[in-house]
Amino acid sequence: MTNAMPQNMPHPSLALLTDLYQLTMAYGYWKQGRADQPAVFHLFFRKPPFQGGYAIAAGLAPAIDYLSAFRFEPDDIAYLATLVGNDGQSLFEPRFFDYLAELRLACDVDAMPEGTVAFGQEPLLRVRGPILQCQLLETALLNIVNFQTLIATKAARVCQAAAGDPVVEFGLRRAQGIDGGLSASRAAYIGGCAATSNVLAGKLYGIPVKGTHAHSWVMSFDTEAEAFASYAEAMPNNCVFLVDTYDTLEGVRRAVEIGIKLRSEGHELVGVRLDSGDLAYLSIEARKILDAGGFSQAQILASNDLDERIIENLKAQGAKISVWGVGTKLATAYDQPALGGVYKLGAVQNEEGEWAPRLKLSEQVVKTSIPGILQVRRYETTDGMTGDMIYDELGGVDPRQIVVDAKDPTRRKSMPAPLVSRDLLTPVIRGGRVVAESEPLEVVRERARGELQRLHPTIRRFMNPHEYPVGLDVGLHECRDAMIQAARDPQVAATPEG
Amino acid sequence: MTNAMPQNMPHPSLALLTDLYQLTMAYGYWKQGRADQPAVFHLFFRKPPFQGGYAIAAGLAPAIDYLSAFRFEPDDIAYLATLVGNDGQSLFEPRFFDYLAELRLACDVDAMPEGTVAFGQEPLLRVRGPILQCQLLETALLNIVNFQTLIATKAARVCQAAAGDPVVEFGLRRAQGIDGGLSASRAAYIGGCAATSNVLAGKLYGIPVKGTHAHSWVMSFDTEAEAFASYAEAMPNNCVFLVDTYDTLEGVRRAVEIGIKLRSEGHELVGVRLDSGDLAYLSIEARKILDAGGFSQAQILASNDLDERIIENLKAQGAKISVWGVGTKLATAYDQPALGGVYKLGAVQNEEGEWAPRLKLSEQVVKTSIPGILQVRRYETTDGMTGDMIYDELGGVDPRQIVVDAKDPTRRKSMPAPLVSRDLLTPVIRGGRVVAESEPLEVVRERARGELQRLHPTIRRFMNPHEYPVGLDVGLHECRDAMIQAARDPQVAATPEG
Repeated sequence: MTNAMPQNMPHPSLALLTDLYQLTMAYGYWKQGRADQPAVFHLFFRKPPFQGGYAIAAGLAPAIDYLSAFRFEPDDIAYLATLVGNDGQSLFEPRFFDYLAELRLACDVDAMPEGTVAFGQEPLLRVRGPILQCQLLETALLNIVNFQTLIATKAARVCQAAAGDPVVEFGLRRAQGIDGGLSASRAAYIGGCAATSNVLAGKLYGIPVKGTHAHSWVMSFDTEAEAFASYAEAMPNNCVFLVDTYDTLEGVRRAVEIGIKLRSEGHELVGVRLDSGDLAYLSIEARKILDAGGFSQAQILASNDLDERIIENLKAQGAKISVWGVGTKLATAYDQPALGGVYKLGAVQNEEGEWAPRLKLSEQVVKTSIPGILQVRRYETTDGMTGDMIYDELGGVDPRQIVVDAKDPTRRKSMPAPLVSRDLLTPVIRGGRVVAESEPLEVVRERARGELQRLHPTIRRFMNPHEYPVGLDVGLHECRDAMIQAARDPQVAATPEG
Repeated sequence: MTNAMPQNMPHPSLALLTDLYQLTMAYGYWKQGRADQPAVFHLFFRKPPFQGGYAIAAGLAPAIDYLSAFRFEPDDIAYLATLVGNDGQSLFEPRFFDYLAELRLACDVDAMPEGTVAFGQEPLLRVRGPILQCQLLETALLNIVNFQTLIATKAARVCQAAAGDPVVEFGLRRAQGIDGGLSASRAAYIGGCAATSNVLAGKLYGIPVKGTHAHSWVMSFDTEAEAFASYAEAMPNNCVFLVDTYDTLEGVRRAVEIGIKLRSEGHELVGVRLDSGDLAYLSIEARKILDAGGFSQAQILASNDLDERIIENLKAQGAKISVWGVGTKLATAYDQPALGGVYKLGAVQNEEGEWAPRLKLSEQVVKTSIPGILQVRRYETTDGMTGDMIYDELGGVDPRQIVVDAKDPTRRKSMPAPLVSRDLLTPVIRGGRVVAESEPLEVVRERARGELQRLHPTIRRFMNPHEYPVGLDVGLHECRDAMIQAARDPQVAATPEG
């Protein structure tokens, strides 16, 4: 069951939710008799988004739903049979379709639990299994994990700026498609948002939902006073009056009048919402009016193109805002709307059953891949997280040292004792069957909150964050370095293992 | 059937795909006995995206699918019954749920056909009907139309930069969710893309799909030569070799070698793909190698974070690229990932059956709404499109003059004769039933292409585009102006009609 679809509905096939080249490569492997050759792929991003210091891994549960349901249905195959090459002939031969129809996933997947704090180069997901299958999964896994990780991270930043005030996600109307909106609501909740305006996300994921009325409600009456009074009469237990349709502070005074009436009838005004104008000035003045009217508990909710930097700035100005409504900038991750996550081959097994690491070279060191069957070990002290080591499960591990700068391998970090360490990638799927228990969203959200607390504040800051130490195990670094040197040697330019 | 779901599948309910405040307002109208009060809402954006001069309307067909399927299912209502207010009591009373369960859309919808060139302030969609219903539709309509219009527009710009070369959309892996990817593929095709890598979009929408192999294919072999040869053997009628895994120009030479072998066996090399490095330099050198090898027809496909500005720049440098693969920057509209479309009340009918226009004031003129039951009239000469007039169907129309600047109403534009004019909003739904015939995507795509050709090139340019004249009918301008003055008069501050 993926995010695109409400739960408990028949699940349409998403096996074709992939790039065509995954299928043409799958065909190539199959034609070569290499369909079942074991391989390992890693899904990772290179740098945290938003020029920040961290990311929050998210999207695993919907990725598992996708994997559980993976199979080619007859209409998928019928479609593939219509595809032709530059000679007008079918791309695929019919026996391949029989193969696809029978295909059942046999992969192992290890992943960081959702809500884990993650850094550049660290695998969020590791897929190990028949190379044909690993390849077919790439695009959908990237689509799901890239976006939810992006939004969970954005939400964590927005909530950090709100400094404990509740943040309500309001992004559905500007989100990128229906599932763009639904999965943004889910990921925003993981990242720390308190609620969403998206009712379907509330129904599907159990996220608290919030909302009262819009400008159109006020405009549909002859006067604002009439609009507020009518709303209060209809729903006296959910009154957050939007006060800026005409004159904001006049609107706040009217909200106080209605609040007095509500109280006399045994109800309590929840608050007011500001959606335009100078939010610092208006919130301070609105607070005075509410307090003077006897409504010191009433909330002031603000919205209007907010993001973490504007919230931080409003806080610095002493704005009296108690709840933050954040829409477009959060649900689309406006300042960086895509996480550049990739899915790279780490190793293949040869016919003798030996694993051979594989490397993708690039002019840029950060784009040269890390070979092996990778795991991430996180070291913590009582003070919090101190560093992560990426190591190859096939090699040995030197637990005391990591190389934190591939360009300068003398920059090694020694880990202080006493240390607690744990491996972040945990088994999720074995032989195509889900082995991880599904986690309530509350548990995931609490994990993110806890991990962020164990991260040094300088790593969490927005401006030039301090770099959290992530490096390679010394042995892995030396192996990778040797592979890079060998691949660059013109005599063996085309053979990455040299 | 919406974009989130493959066609021919049972359709899950999307009635809750909305902001909670739409439902609380609906409840308010219902409690007041105003549920069926006729109202008119307009969906429009204020400025074209990307600091450009135009947009391409898209998303209507999926919006119609959403509207056709609109109804509250028992599990939707069961969820709503769980929502409580600040006193712990239910937000809604049980009789309202009976009302929702029986609710069937009775609205009229008029819309610009998909592929129409649209400008700021022009309604893309007009919804007229019971105010409760109009309100419930707002969020989902904005979600669908905002995003597809954004991406169709981005695609039109990218295709304009490509100047006739085919553009292939590659964005699925970085798109915002599953439907973010599917609806981006659809909208990109409307905007002019030739194909997509997204196989499910191919199956669902009939868009041509393209793809060959990735770096991982090359890396899974000991040598690049072996990788190319194996691919050619498997699928000789679809060979676009990705040549930059190790050394790009060496890769092109290997592609030529395989191309010669392919030709000797009766097949033809399609081309090569460059995915990194200096695309201007590498494409020029690759072209020389291909031409010298006898492959002057072979395509050079380039990808790697391209957008309209990079393509324009590569063209200016004389890059020899014949097909453009555009992913993240297109599918997420990276430089502006949300269209700020809004849905505003234009008029309500009173108990006497008279329509009263409604206005939303704002400090900014561009954010003050246009009251009325609006239509858009487009004027064309044999030279192309000359100007659009927004008019109120309830008022008269002066066909000779439009006011093009609300801040300076003396800036009127007279329309030159002879003119052809047509109204852009056409009937789509009447009384909740679809009356518009569904259009093949090819027809929509061709409409966009044709309309863009009738737009002056200076309006299409990227840098400070010339402004296309869009204005109000003189009578509508005067009516709106009077309403603004009346609303600003403190004596009647809260009564927009004065």
